Amino acid sequence: MADYFAFEVLKTSPPGRGARLGRISTPRGLVNTPAFMPVATQGTVKAMTRAQLLELGAEILLANAYHLYIRPGVEVIAKAGGLHEFMAWERPLLTDSGGYQVFSLSALREVNEEGATFRSPVDGAEHFLSPEAAVEIQHALDAEIIMSFDEPVAFGVSRGEAEAAAARSDRWAQRGKARHDSLGGRALFGIVQGGFWDDLREESARRIVELGFDGYSIGGLSVGEPKELTFALAGRVAQLLPSSAPRYLMGVGLPHEILRAVSLGIDLFDCVLPTRLGRNGTALTRFGKLNLRNHKYIADFRPLDPDCDCQTCRHHSRAYLRHLHKAKEILASTLVCYHNLYLYQRLMKEIRAALVEERFEEFHREFEMRRKDVESDNPG
Amino acid sequence: MADYFAFEVLKTSPPGRGARLGRISTPRGLVNTPAFMPVATQGTVKAMTRAQLLELGAEILLANAYHLYIRPGVEVIAKAGGLHEFMAWERPLLTDSGGYQVFSLSALREVNEEGATFRSPVDGAEHFLSPEAAVEIQHALDAEIIMSFDEPVAFGVSRGEAEAAAARSDRWAQRGKARHDSLGGRALFGIVQGGFWDDLREESARRIVELGFDGYSIGGLSVGEPKELTFALAGRVAQLLPSSAPRYLMGVGLPHEILRAVSLGIDLFDCVLPTRLGRNGTALTRFGKLNLRNHKYIADFRPLDPDCDCQTCRHHSRAYLRHLHKAKEILASTLVCYHNLYLYQRLMKEIRAALVEERFEEFHREFEMRRKDVESDNPG
Repeated sequence: MADYFAFEVLKTSPPGRGARLGRISTPRGLVNTPAFMPVATQGTVKAMTRAQLLELGAEILLANAYHLYIRPGVEVIAKAGGLHEFMAWERPLLTDSGGYQVFSLSALREVNEEGATFRSPVDGAEHFLSPEAAVEIQHALDAEIIMSFDEPVAFGVSRGEAEAAAARSDRWAQRGKARHDSLGGRALFGIVQGGFWDDLREESARRIVELGFDGYSIGGLSVGEPKELTFALAGRVAQLLPSSAPRYLMGVGLPHEILRAVSLGIDLFDCVLPTRLGRNGTALTRFGKLNLRNHKYIADFRPLDPDCDCQTCRHHSRAYLRHLHKAKEILASTLVCYHNLYLYQRLMKEIRAALVEERFEEFHREFEMRRKDVESDNPG
Repeated sequence: MADYFAFEVLKTSPPGRGARLGRISTPRGLVNTPAFMPVATQGTVKAMTRAQLLELGAEILLANAYHLYIRPGVEVIAKAGGLHEFMAWERPLLTDSGGYQVFSLSALREVNEEGATFRSPVDGAEHFLSPEAAVEIQHALDAEIIMSFDEPVAFGVSRGEAEAAAARSDRWAQRGKARHDSLGGRALFGIVQGGFWDDLREESARRIVELGFDGYSIGGLSVGEPKELTFALAGRVAQLLPSSAPRYLMGVGLPHEILRAVSLGIDLFDCVLPTRLGRNGTALTRFGKLNLRNHKYIADFRPLDPDCDCQTCRHHSRAYLRHLHKAKEILASTLVCYHNLYLYQRLMKEIRAALVEERFEEFHREFEMRRKDVESDNPG
């Protein structure tokens, strides 16, 4: 571990295992964990200004190397002085390597041991990404935490395909790490793959830990598999990762899923849902999802969530937000995304407070009881 | 004049005529004039939060009775406690009557002396609006300043059509005023029509002034006619209006047009351009329009306007804003609309300061010289 990146576990619950209260230190500031990273795919958390993100208390954002490489291009961002300067975000950033996007968004031309050749979904131009190039791009973007380039698999692949992709991802992790070590100055996380088989996940975890990274991501989950399988695999892998390094469960999830993953010892999360749902007029509340397209909100002058003290809930009613959404006003997205992100930030703060006060299990139990109580009474 | 509405002229430039420094008093607060009203057509200034509007220093917004009547409906807004409550805007509001929209946006079925029957562009439902109903709707919306229901004409109509429409608008103004007087509690503005003929404008102004309103609007201009004609007519009408009441030139305009109209004695303005252009990626600057779609901004790390100290210019570059616009990110609209509205609010503040300091003519002259200097060097 270099001095530009450090992770401390401050407390665990129950003691010695399970949920962890921690702190990541970077040259751009601290990240208190468990932390949720709002997703700034293209260098902006959708519909949010810098001032709103600071007001929400976000300590770290996730951006996507693939999207930024495609547009506006790494040269532009490097010329701006890096992604922090480009997007005017002074606090820590984590970039995803783009492995997932190369395979899910691009017209794929060829993948071989060397890397992946693909076409840009923006202009059709051909690009080649190797594990080394993915690391170099992320260095140029200048995030504090960067990811290895991996080859994920979809739910439903054969065991043989998953095994081959995991083995290749592990070899790519090694190559990326070698390039990263020659560049220095930030943290590189390895990604555990292995599809939906315990032993493949264990094998991948063993190899990635052996290589040694600043942190460990669990990739390729929450891609359509049953949730019980997600958490069984995440929990199994978490136990195999060193307790001294942060653990990041990529792409997870809804609030109750995050809480469950925290109980399994995960420290970092990201998810597009708060902003994706927000733009579609769906608010997340502690009483379930609230779909503003529903006619019953036309004259409902209550806030989205009467227990929420965010700027949206302080000032605006369901009726007004429904009107804005129906009228296709940009402000609908802004206000609902803000509320949804606030819910996440508040949840993470409550989780950390519960860990500080040694009542995490109680907090988790009460959260689940309340959730089950209201499941049958979803206001959506 | 009732005590819920007052207007004082504090200074004129040159003394006794021309530009006026003034102040409108309402139960919801003061409006320093000359004032620009950001347009909140559907109960939101496009892409702007309440906090951003307060930060911009907007003292009054304009909303549109027609759009709000169509959606979400007056009943919903009345039930919310009025438009201030519905849209969470505590400061003064002015509503336009909807005359212009009935004629420009609706599939028109019939207009006769009684009023206008038209179809909703949202759901095709048939509606009827009379001058009395338009006033009642605006009372239910609860704006501090409301407009008479008028029948505007397009540029290119015959003199006969313009004359008939103006005469009918004046009769409608009388009927609306009678209904308004029985309801009380807010200010009603009459609207001068008369198309593009001096004598028709004078005749309309004479009749509207004779009826007696809390303020006077000049309607039906800036609809495609040559700008010299706009200002010749606006200037002619302004001279015929009582100096003791505010004058509102509806739908005008670009910054230099507002400045020119101020010199003719106009006090109130509204225009959709700052937000419409902003959403289309065009920033207004003191050096002309800047079109972010232009490739030359791809690595231009200067702010939109180096002389601007708005939140957008303080934190973001042309390159970043161009990227957001190209990537169809909502934040592009937010940041460019904010900058454009800031330019307008700053212009109005500078105009008022120049009037206070008795150097308005000098300010106007310098503004025009700078504008002509840069016209040939538009950064667009």
